[in-house]
Parts: sequence; C-alpha cells; structure tokens
Amino acid sequence: MRFSPLVDQLMEAFRVLPGVGPKTAQRMAMHLLERERDGGKRLAATIEQAIDEVGYCQRCRTLTEAELCVLCESPRRDDALLCVVESPADQLAIEEAGGFLGRYFVLHGHLSPIDGVGPEAIGLEQLEALVAQGVIQEIVLATNPTVEGEATAHYIATQLNDYGVRFSRLAYGVPMGGELEYVDGGTLSRAFNGRLPFSSE
Amino acid sequence: MRFSPLVDQLMEAFRVLPGVGPKTAQRMAMHLLERERDGGKRLAATIEQAIDEVGYCQRCRTLTEAELCVLCESPRRDDALLCVVESPADQLAIEEAGGFLGRYFVLHGHLSPIDGVGPEAIGLEQLEALVAQGVIQEIVLATNPTVEGEATAHYIATQLNDYGVRFSRLAYGVPMGGELEYVDGGTLSRAFNGRLPFSSE
Ligand SMILES: [Zn+2]
Ligand SMILES: [Zn+2]
Repeated sequence: MRFSPLVDQLMEAFRVLPGVGPKTAQRMAMHLLERERDGGKRLAATIEQAIDEVGYCQRCRTLTEAELCVLCESPRRDDALLCVVESPADQLAIEEAGGFLGRYFVLHGHLSPIDGVGPEAIGLEQLEALVAQGVIQEIVLATNPTVEGEATAHYIATQLNDYGVRFSRLAYGVPMGGELEYVDGGTLSRAFNGRLPFSSE
Repeated sequence: MRFSPLVDQLMEAFRVLPGVGPKTAQRMAMHLLERERDGGKRLAATIEQAIDEVGYCQRCRTLTEAELCVLCESPRRDDALLCVVESPADQLAIEEAGGFLGRYFVLHGHLSPIDGVGPEAIGLEQLEALVAQGVIQEIVLATNPTVEGEATAHYIATQLNDYGVRFSRLAYGVPMGGELEYVDGGTLSRAFNGRLPFSSE
C-alpha cells in the first residue's frame, strides 16, 4: 500500500481501461485527486449514466441510448447499401476513414461455437428481417480479416443467399490477422473502394 | 456526433485523464460499453468515492482518506529524516525507487507569486510546526529541479534556518528542467544517495 486503501483502490480501478498498466493507472489517480476533481466527478457520473442508459440501436444494433442511432436517423445515407461490422469501434473506424455512405449493422462479436456464440447472439435473425424488407441491394461483409471473421462472413452470405442481395468483402489492403479497429483511415478507405464480390461457396 | 449524445459525451469525458487524446478516449468508451460494464461501474463508483473522501494526511499532507497516511503511521521510518516533495506522485516515485527510509512532507505545488501561491498554500506553516518539534535533523528538499522548485527549496531553507536542521538537495543525476515524477527509479535512487548539503545563501 502506498498512501491509503482508497487511493490504492482508485489506482487499481483504472486498470480496467484498455492499455492502462500500473504506472499509467497511478498517474491517472494522482492527476484526478491533485488537479482534476471536478473533471473526475464528471467522468464518474458520465461513465455511470452511459453504462446505465446506453443500449443497442433497434435497427442496426450500434451503441445508443435512443431507440435509433444518429446514423439510422439520418436521411442522407444509402438504404440499399449495408455494411456489417463486428463492433461499434469498427464502425467508427470506417466512418472516420470516410467514403462509405450506406448504413451499418453491428454484430457485437463473431460466431464462435466453442464459446457458445451462435447466430442469435450476433443478431443474425434481426439482420435477416432487415434484408427481408427488400430495400438492401448490397451487403459489405466488413467482419475482421481473421479466421472467425471470415467464417462469420461466409455464414451470413449463406444464410441470406435467397434474398437476391450482392455480397462484398473489403479489398486487400486490410492486413490479414489484424483488427479493423486499428487500421489507418487511408488503408480502410482504399479497401472500401476496392471491395470484392463475395459468395458463400 | 458518431453514435448518440451520451456515447459522445463519454468519449469526451475520458479526455480529462492525462495523456488521453481523442483516439484513446474513443477506445476507452467503446471498451467499457462493449466489454467491461461491471468494471466500468466499479471505476465510476471508486472515482466518485475517492474524490469525495480522499483529503490530506494531517501530518505530511499526502493523499489519504484517513487522519494519518500509511507512511506516517508506520513505526519503521526514521523520524529524524524528512523529504519535502512537490506532489504525492513525486513521493510515490521516490518510494518506488527504494532506499529512502525517512518521512515525507508534501507541498502540493511550489511557490508561485504570479499565480498567488504563497507559503501558506503549500503548507509551510505546518512544515515549520513539524520541524519545531525538534526531532527532525535533516530535510531533503526534493522539489523539482526547475526554477520554481529551486526557488521553493531556497525559501524553505531560509525560513527554517534557525532550527539547527541540515538541508540537502538531490544529487546530480536528476535532469535539469525535468519533473521528478517521470525520472526512472535507478536515477532517483542514485540521486538520493549522492544528495548534497544545501544552504539558503
Ligand atoms: Zn442504428
Ligand atoms: Zn502522512
């Protein structure tokens, strides 16, 4: 123990954040207690409120506290083009890369039979209902370029095979085995433009 | 706006933490909402409680929710040796370097007449009362090796000149113009061992 149980507990609590080791956690705790008590209070209240209130968009399943997210509400997006991603972070990376003007569907994961993650857990019934409305013409299967991401893309293309929708996958440019979330905007943007037809065979 | 007002607000709130830019703040918000809602709740509650309850040790002014901090309560430290630091983070860096077995006094800043920070704001009356008890024989003035830190060290040595206490300052090894908090443990430890006598002239 360095100062007191509560100060130690605060240093420990920050380690729940991604990329935060013991040194950084200590610095964060000191910073809030020494220089940012008001900002710290606001941070705590915002985390609390967001965790209580933020759920999934009823249409695309991205994160939102409203029934529909900002992108689903927007009239300026192409309803015929849908991009399926594993996470809101992937969606954010694609949005920041710019150039994609369609809509999204967020799986919150990928198929993983070993972990008991089946089609329902990643919203595939909801996705099928969306496609069954007959407006979507192309689905960009932008799952991660990993074994699980590829398998999930294949599963979706097979499941939705009878709806007359074109499938595509991001072009080369996305590094194999990587995570979309960490790909730079330029690479992502080029990969989008060069997206390839995709079939379930 | 990316997802919804509340998700945006959460991404923004993390920027109060040191070294957290927009990208990292986004990643933290996504991570808590997607994978760590329980840990996020604990983090929020701990920040809230720590900011409400953590104050200053009545003896050494370091951070603690108790009357006395863990180090002041410890019977295994040398009462004759006192190390004066600008911040609890500096104290922590020295503790982690190891080798110093005395006690501490935390200023929470340095003298800065331009900003209206005078002797009382950094606890110098309390420090003098501590020294007046007659137990302390040496004071290590471990303020930062900056212009303000040097000026504060000189002020303290002058103020306490009549108590027959020896003053010292950390040895060379601490880079000039730097901040103690970011100095590596080995350098800090060597600087402690080679500390020099210090006078107010
Ligand atoms: Zn939506
Ligand atoms: Zn203390």
